[in-house]
Amino acid sequence: MTPEEFRRHGREVIDWIADYIEQVERYPVHSRARPGDLREALPETAPRAGEPFEDILADVDRLILPGITHWQSPSFFGFYPANTSPPSILGELLSAGLGVQGMLWTTSPACTELEQHVLDWLVEMLDLPKKFLSSGSGGGVIQDTASSAVLCALLAACYRHGGANGRSAGIDRRLVAYASDQAHSSIEKALLVAGMGTGRLRKIETDDGFAMRADCLAERMAADVADGLVPAFVCATVGTTSSAAVDPLESIGEICCRHGAWLHVDAAMAGTAALCPEFRGMHDGLEAADSYAFNPHKWMFVNFDCDCFFVADRGPLLEALSILPEYLRNQATQSGQVVDFRDWQVPLGRRFRALKLWFVIRSFGVEGLQEKIRGHVALAEEFAGWVEADESFELAVPRSLNLVCFRHGGGDDVNQQLLDALNDSGQVFLTHTRLENRLTLRFSIGQTGTRREHVERAWGLIRETARAQQSPQ
Amino acid sequence: MTPEEFRRHGREVIDWIADYIEQVERYPVHSRARPGDLREALPETAPRAGEPFEDILADVDRLILPGITHWQSPSFFGFYPANTSPPSILGELLSAGLGVQGMLWTTSPACTELEQHVLDWLVEMLDLPKKFLSSGSGGGVIQDTASSAVLCALLAACYRHGGANGRSAGIDRRLVAYASDQAHSSIEKALLVAGMGTGRLRKIETDDGFAMRADCLAERMAADVADGLVPAFVCATVGTTSSAAVDPLESIGEICCRHGAWLHVDAAMAGTAALCPEFRGMHDGLEAADSYAFNPHKWMFVNFDCDCFFVADRGPLLEALSILPEYLRNQATQSGQVVDFRDWQVPLGRRFRALKLWFVIRSFGVEGLQEKIRGHVALAEEFAGWVEADESFELAVPRSLNLVCFRHGGGDDVNQQLLDALNDSGQVFLTHTRLENRLTLRFSIGQTGTRREHVERAWGLIRETARAQQSPQ
Repeated sequence: MTPEEFRRHGREVIDWIADYIEQVERYPVHSRARPGDLREALPETAPRAGEPFEDILADVDRLILPGITHWQSPSFFGFYPANTSPPSILGELLSAGLGVQGMLWTTSPACTELEQHVLDWLVEMLDLPKKFLSSGSGGGVIQDTASSAVLCALLAACYRHGGANGRSAGIDRRLVAYASDQAHSSIEKALLVAGMGTGRLRKIETDDGFAMRADCLAERMAADVADGLVPAFVCATVGTTSSAAVDPLESIGEICCRHGAWLHVDAAMAGTAALCPEFRGMHDGLEAADSYAFNPHKWMFVNFDCDCFFVADRGPLLEALSILPEYLRNQATQSGQVVDFRDWQVPLGRRFRALKLWFVIRSFGVEGLQEKIRGHVALAEEFAGWVEADESFELAVPRSLNLVCFRHGGGDDVNQQLLDALNDSGQVFLTHTRLENRLTLRFSIGQTGTRREHVERAWGLIRETARAQQSPQ
Repeated sequence: MTPEEFRRHGREVIDWIADYIEQVERYPVHSRARPGDLREALPETAPRAGEPFEDILADVDRLILPGITHWQSPSFFGFYPANTSPPSILGELLSAGLGVQGMLWTTSPACTELEQHVLDWLVEMLDLPKKFLSSGSGGGVIQDTASSAVLCALLAACYRHGGANGRSAGIDRRLVAYASDQAHSSIEKALLVAGMGTGRLRKIETDDGFAMRADCLAERMAADVADGLVPAFVCATVGTTSSAAVDPLESIGEICCRHGAWLHVDAAMAGTAALCPEFRGMHDGLEAADSYAFNPHKWMFVNFDCDCFFVADRGPLLEALSILPEYLRNQATQSGQVVDFRDWQVPLGRRFRALKLWFVIRSFGVEGLQEKIRGHVALAEEFAGWVEADESFELAVPRSLNLVCFRHGGGDDVNQQLLDALNDSGQVFLTHTRLENRLTLRFSIGQTGTRREHVERAWGLIRETARAQQSPQ
């Protein structure tokens, strides 16, 4: 494909995406594909000769679209938002066009420096503790996901217990990690990946609002210490996946401090809300955290992947992850004047992800972002009010930010049927969780294009579908 | 940004990239930025109000470009190729526009099925062992990097030793891993991440051609067994980073088989050469491998990130990495009819990376890809001939595929000065390694736009620069 052909086909793809944004509501939100549908339609082997781009793009419509669950639909209320936006798409495009590697400062200085700079901006934008700024001993870095962030935090926490011989000896078997029983599955996975095993994770009980009970954490740590174990790592959650519960950071921080345990705060989805001063209460006590992560690729209009991970002290992170083989040595690194982000993450290579984050922040502006977030939270508040006012439904917990957990009063089977019918309709997409062992529907508002009319229509559909199911057939 | 504005700005970015591809030779290949240059030019805080896209794109020219090391320049001969191509850029663009999550089959069936299908294509295209096909007990998956692939392979290898209690108990401390002293630093890093510590990695001696000595591997394993340790994992390399050396897979495979150790083969850069039957000798013995990885984002015209990771048996991988919290349960997963790729990797989320791989394979066709690869290898062969014919220079090792390791006869200082002068010229970019403790220049040919004239010009510049340095000043 020559540059001239690229210009032509590039415009076609841009138009395709613009059309998609305009027409996404036409498609069933949840794909109706059955297992194997796509594979049956694809040729068994790769083509020997090149094919015209027109044919490939036509196949995207014909073969790929039916197998898409439309995360960018304004009627997508499942899981968590994973939104994107036009400036983010263009940032990703430019990053692909430049095709640079940001593993070392020297392999593209702008890639590292823009990332440092924009993550410093975010410290101010979210009013995070100043110790996360790159100007001091800490700093921020883009990880692919909150899973990788918690893994890196865990490794930093564990290797700092090892002393001079730690990197050679591996992670001390006496180290223990803690998180609430509502914390994300990635924490358990991090313990598997770090070779510690899930048996080293203590799942701490939660209160009626599904927030970690600090008293239980303190008790469990004391018991572990009495058993000769070492509390090394606590992951507190700001906005749990099931119900957006917020752990009490202040009391957890005090306990961590007492035991010398590393406190990581996972605010993957909820963190973005801190753009608005009125929601910053969820971060009370964050000063005690050793690390913090939130995902602009969830609720901040930046397409996946873009997790922002901050540490108060980059020393332990580098101690856990840095490697300098001969073929990566260079003057800039040896001068000590630059940061090489390969040492802040598991992979070596990294692409220029700061571009899309920079594009989004500049295009929306802080005020534009605040307006969108406030809009989503206000819609969730309104939706929660409708649920409360309807005697067939109840809130499972009070609404938290942009997430409403609710259920029909008819029990698990009724709720499962309702969920299946709603998703089969193609008009909305919701997912579920279990709270107090009861099936609970989650209504998560955060797609870029979601407006009041979509939420209103969804609620109408939920009520009608439930009513139709309850009436004798 | 409305869809209409997106159409307009999207075209601008497409044109920007087309211009960039056409004009990339104008820029100094290696960025001349000094530490802090970009950060000093950026505003200290994020803008409150949104800014026009025109201003942002103008800043890319004004601020970002000077800080770019141009990996896509046809005169970039450093590290390894990390090439891209127009169809790949458009695949990445479409993926950003669709904005789907491929963590589960149900969250976009096409995302999972296209990935399975294209990775099956690659098994045939590279003539890999059939056991890596998804139709049997194995299958392929896209990882971000070869670092993550080797980590996943190590975890699968280690957890299969743990028995029923393994996930809870963590990785057995008696397990040992092996790789050659030329293997990539990511293997050492994988042992750090897996909590095992670098002390559990045996770096096996290499022969004159920098390939692993199977006799040394066998001896070391026997010694470890005698010490009560368990050989669990071997990483063999096809195409080392320093010199593209190829480990003897057949003998290594026999040794692994004898000890029940998992054999992972890392062909990150070189693997792509197997598109051409004449280069497939490097894969002799691959039938014994439990897993294999190569990076289309290095030499196959697919922009970063895209590592293809294949396992012969997906069971141990799932055993090591699968987690199923309530909020991810769904009918398709429970039916057992589908694959959920979140269980094949460390992160939970994943984007639709198979699109760009599909676009590239279809646009080039197998024959188009072969032609490019053969062209690069032929250029390397020619370059090696020029080095051999020049009495001031010597080959450090015989050329391997697209990589020529050479040096000036004047010793380390001369070579260092030569390297610095070449890179400072802005006309080419090369990197170095050390072989037999001597500074060695690496000339790696693999950028999409590199033609004979670029290699010829680079060689002319290398000779002239060396001659100018040697002459009295």
